[in-house]
Amino acid sequence: MKRILIIGIGAGNPDYITMQAVKALNRTDVFFLMDKGQSKDKLIDLRREICETYITEPGYRFVEADCPERVRGDIDYTTAVQDLNRDKQLTFERMINEEMADGEVGAFLAWGDPALYDSTIRILQAILASGRSAFEFEVIPGITSVQALAAQHKVPLNRIGKSVEITTGRRLAAGQASDADTLVVMLDAEDSYRTVADQDVDIYWGAYLGTPDEILISGKVAEVAEEIERVRKAAREANGWIMDTYLLRKPSHI
Amino acid sequence: MKRILIIGIGAGNPDYITMQAVKALNRTDVFFLMDKGQSKDKLIDLRREICETYITEPGYRFVEADCPERVRGDIDYTTAVQDLNRDKQLTFERMINEEMADGEVGAFLAWGDPALYDSTIRILQAILASGRSAFEFEVIPGITSVQALAAQHKVPLNRIGKSVEITTGRRLAAGQASDADTLVVMLDAEDSYRTVADQDVDIYWGAYLGTPDEILISGKVAEVAEEIERVRKAAREANGWIMDTYLLRKPSHI
Ligand SMILES: C[S@@+](CC[C@H](N)C(=O)[O-])C[C@H]1O[C@@H](n2cnc3c(N)ncnc32)[C@H](O)[C@@H]1O
Ligand SMILES: C[S@@+](CC[C@H](N)C(=O)[O-])C[C@H]1O[C@@H](n2cnc3c(N)ncnc32)[C@H](O)[C@@H]1O
Repeated sequence: MKRILIIGIGAGNPDYITMQAVKALNRTDVFFLMDKGQSKDKLIDLRREICETYITEPGYRFVEADCPERVRGDIDYTTAVQDLNRDKQLTFERMINEEMADGEVGAFLAWGDPALYDSTIRILQAILASGRSAFEFEVIPGITSVQALAAQHKVPLNRIGKSVEITTGRRLAAGQASDADTLVVMLDAEDSYRTVADQDVDIYWGAYLGTPDEILISGKVAEVAEEIERVRKAAREANGWIMDTYLLRKPSHI
Repeated sequence: MKRILIIGIGAGNPDYITMQAVKALNRTDVFFLMDKGQSKDKLIDLRREICETYITEPGYRFVEADCPERVRGDIDYTTAVQDLNRDKQLTFERMINEEMADGEVGAFLAWGDPALYDSTIRILQAILASGRSAFEFEVIPGITSVQALAAQHKVPLNRIGKSVEITTGRRLAAGQASDADTLVVMLDAEDSYRTVADQDVDIYWGAYLGTPDEILISGKVAEVAEEIERVRKAAREANGWIMDTYLLRKPSHI
């Protein structure tokens, strides 16, 4: 039997790695790396760095595949991601079938936690369901960008007894976010926090969390939205890419 | 200056500890332990075990305080927690003022992640705001029970492009949960999943996640609610306490 590990490596700081992940890295024979194109080279580098830092026994190998890109433009987001995942599924399937032997352990390194806005679990479940490949798999959790955000701003995610909704920039901009007391927004390509700038809401914004490039800004959305937009644009230009997450919270009237 | 660390130790598996937490443990002079009464002795034990396992230099010390209990009954939940936190604040303040010296590092070990349904961050912020104690503090994230739940069931937390709401059993039972695609329920003392047993919803339930006593049950709520209730009751009686979390998801019609 083949065994696949989906290892959460944390969202930015190499020290976010857990002991469970370190043990998993050390059980792995072959690491599957998905090259997401030049702009994300730093992420691939971080993966290699993590392997080099935490694996005590040499003898592991890397298999790289070109990661298909999501089609942008005309078709809707869910369809585009589903198409992308079908392509990824074929790539993963081929790697598992051709690049590892029975009895070996293969691993995918997932940024942050594999369960949050990441398709690896879904794709492996789909491969198993298709019956075109047989393996066992395990999921190893990792520190998410949501937790990095709260930790770096030193704020709780929730108010006492209240809810937290984790959502996407797309949903926020489309008015599809719930009225949860706290909203955490990920995957925002469009500065969607601007859509709530007319409301009395606090924002805790973070980019490149846990890395040396980390930027934190907080305040009333109405007061800091322009600053965030400016800083975000400049950082994206300087680095070629950006990863940011933010928390929106209604003021407490208790 | 005094320095306080709030260290997330993960929610159950000692291997959930991060390298960042291990480094933080090793910087700590004094650990503040809150004794939550007999039923939670196992949790205190886990904290000591984590210190013994991961601290390489001896010389640290423990300070234990009786943790005030939340008043149950008449007053409403938020008020009860606020009262409790005021008592805790005095206890924390006294420990920080009397039990550590300038230049020392003190630490609170938070179960799971310090930002999720945990009052330590809020209390330290309140102490600082009161001006009755001066210190710097850092928050070190840890693996939450939410992540343990998803990892052990091998399911993603969210559907593609959709939201996740993290809420409490109390809110679910009171009909205050949002209509998010995925709902994660914590702090449920009343088997509140029964309130959605008439709906077409999948449940992924987990108790004592990440520990040797872990129990996982999943299926349509309507079909497994009784089993969960039975298993939960028996486990709570056998162990004297229970910690469980679950994910509710509407079926995908895509
Ligand atoms: C495809 S999702 C993956 C999330 C990841 N699985 C996690 O657990 O955080 C990518 C989004 O995560 C957020 N993100 C990931 N890493 C981040 C970081 N270091 N700083 C800020 N945001 C980050 C951003 O919102 C980004 O758009
Ligand atoms: C006061 S909250 C603390 C949550 C914690 N900070 C975290 O990050 O998971 C306690 C609740 O967390 C959940 N929980 C914590 N540890 C758990 C475990 N090992 N298994 C199942 N649920 C757990 C339960 O819902 C419990 O009622």
